[in-house]
Amino acid sequence: MMTEPASAARPTLTLYSPSGVVMRAPDLRRAATRLERLGFAVTVDASATAKFQRFAGDDDTRLAALHRVADAAPSIALATRGGYGLTRLLDRIEWDRLAAAVDRGTRWVGYSDQTALQLALLAHTGRSSWHGPLGIEDFGRTDGDGPGGLDDLTPDCFIEAMSGELEAVGFRTEAGFDGLEAEGVLWGGNLTVLCSLLGTPHWPRIEGGILFVEDINEHPYRVERMLLQLHQAGVLAAQKAVVLGDFGGWRKSPLDRGYTLRTMVAHLRSVCPVPVLTGLPFGHVPTKVTLPVGRVVDLVVQRRDALLAWADDH
Amino acid sequence: MMTEPASAARPTLTLYSPSGVVMRAPDLRRAATRLERLGFAVTVDASATAKFQRFAGDDDTRLAALHRVADAAPSIALATRGGYGLTRLLDRIEWDRLAAAVDRGTRWVGYSDQTALQLALLAHTGRSSWHGPLGIEDFGRTDGDGPGGLDDLTPDCFIEAMSGELEAVGFRTEAGFDGLEAEGVLWGGNLTVLCSLLGTPHWPRIEGGILFVEDINEHPYRVERMLLQLHQAGVLAAQKAVVLGDFGGWRKSPLDRGYTLRTMVAHLRSVCPVPVLTGLPFGHVPTKVTLPVGRVVDLVVQRRDALLAWADDH
Repeated sequence: MMTEPASAARPTLTLYSPSGVVMRAPDLRRAATRLERLGFAVTVDASATAKFQRFAGDDDTRLAALHRVADAAPSIALATRGGYGLTRLLDRIEWDRLAAAVDRGTRWVGYSDQTALQLALLAHTGRSSWHGPLGIEDFGRTDGDGPGGLDDLTPDCFIEAMSGELEAVGFRTEAGFDGLEAEGVLWGGNLTVLCSLLGTPHWPRIEGGILFVEDINEHPYRVERMLLQLHQAGVLAAQKAVVLGDFGGWRKSPLDRGYTLRTMVAHLRSVCPVPVLTGLPFGHVPTKVTLPVGRVVDLVVQRRDALLAWADDH
Repeated sequence: MMTEPASAARPTLTLYSPSGVVMRAPDLRRAATRLERLGFAVTVDASATAKFQRFAGDDDTRLAALHRVADAAPSIALATRGGYGLTRLLDRIEWDRLAAAVDRGTRWVGYSDQTALQLALLAHTGRSSWHGPLGIEDFGRTDGDGPGGLDDLTPDCFIEAMSGELEAVGFRTEAGFDGLEAEGVLWGGNLTVLCSLLGTPHWPRIEGGILFVEDINEHPYRVERMLLQLHQAGVLAAQKAVVLGDFGGWRKSPLDRGYTLRTMVAHLRSVCPVPVLTGLPFGHVPTKVTLPVGRVVDLVVQRRDALLAWADDH
């Protein structure tokens, strides 16, 4: 790292652990090294490898880490892992401190359990954050091909987003939405975590937005139940579009008898008047885009090519 | 059946299918036969074995069955199965018809997916129902010892509850609640299904109640996330007590590191001021009590013996 020039100009990036325990320290070191190679000046938070049961330290430890990172206001605050843990902290987080970091230029980044942080930050302060990779999951693995142990698209998109240069993400969607144009606040994340905020003070009341969701290991009937909850709660009809990411890892059952993700989406479309697009490359999958949560975006579809675009954030 | 005397005086019981598909018709016939032997005049609804994907018929078919059973107003409307399906019907059910059946003496019974029906019925009409066994699950299996292919407590408690003679259910709870006395509306059921109603018009806004919940195949961290959602939504603090049933079927993870159901409950108690009792024998387990949902009950604890008692419903 010392041999690289212009180190002072590199964006600072802090790896911290607000959720699940980091089981293998080498994974975290590998992530730090790879992120350095990708051009970031990496700091690992003091309690990033703390352990308490299934958490990265007890609640006080993780809460202190979150506030410490906020006060330091690095260019990028990147969670090491998802898992579970933020729900326990939501009532105790000093949102003003996280908002102050955003105002000083910090981008909060992650997915999965990070959905709770990002949507609650939006609910309490209106500040935006970034739904994107996790430190260990996307940069610390030994498997895969690319610099993150995975493909190249994920780090490329992440780097562009973190530099402020990324202004659009394109994806291939199903036929039937040609000509669709919508503008609204982009929000969403992991569907289970998002639904776990419903009815609480941490729920962002977004109207006229563009909602994106993904999940892992959830059978389509469980995904459907959550989406129908959002529908019955009036959330879906208040959006301009719903964009589905990846829903993988679930097991088929002999009871399904032709009930699939596809039939689930068809049912949702039959009861919900909002356009429901599929194909956004994000979720618990190797290839994931980095998206701004809480920013106004344009969704434009031409034939089967969809584009989510936003204004330069400089 | 024809040989039994006093058939006309027997309570009528209709087996119907509002949720998951009945895969094996013999299971349903076995349930009907056993319920006849237990003293009920059993009718099997016309579409109880209908099939559409993973559902017991398409939405129109299941909705029609529900309304047909309501209009017939048998003494007992017993769902054949849980699974998933009621969520799709909630916005379309004519609640007045179900309430009219209750007023004519019908007891709606079941658990699991039935939680959606029971709580929505309470939300829309204030009518009570019974959280108890399911037709096939509890009376149609070939395994087990008792008349339902299971133990004797489940049918015994069910029969008493259906006759109006059951006025209390006792269970052994943990130490620490000696002397607790609370009166309030009993409500609850399957935790996942209950949470799926939050924020929708189908959510019963019960204050000062006694909330009972159970779940299956949900890791304690997922149970915790749901309970914390209810806590953060102000639901738990508005109750006089929370009573936990069975939470089984989940798999331990190497990530748990001592995080268990027990530590989860301890955490919940540390953040929530309401008494959280364990030990209620209900859930996705062979031995389950039958409980009135939406009725005022007394919860009394002496040492470790807890009693849920209610007034005669005649």
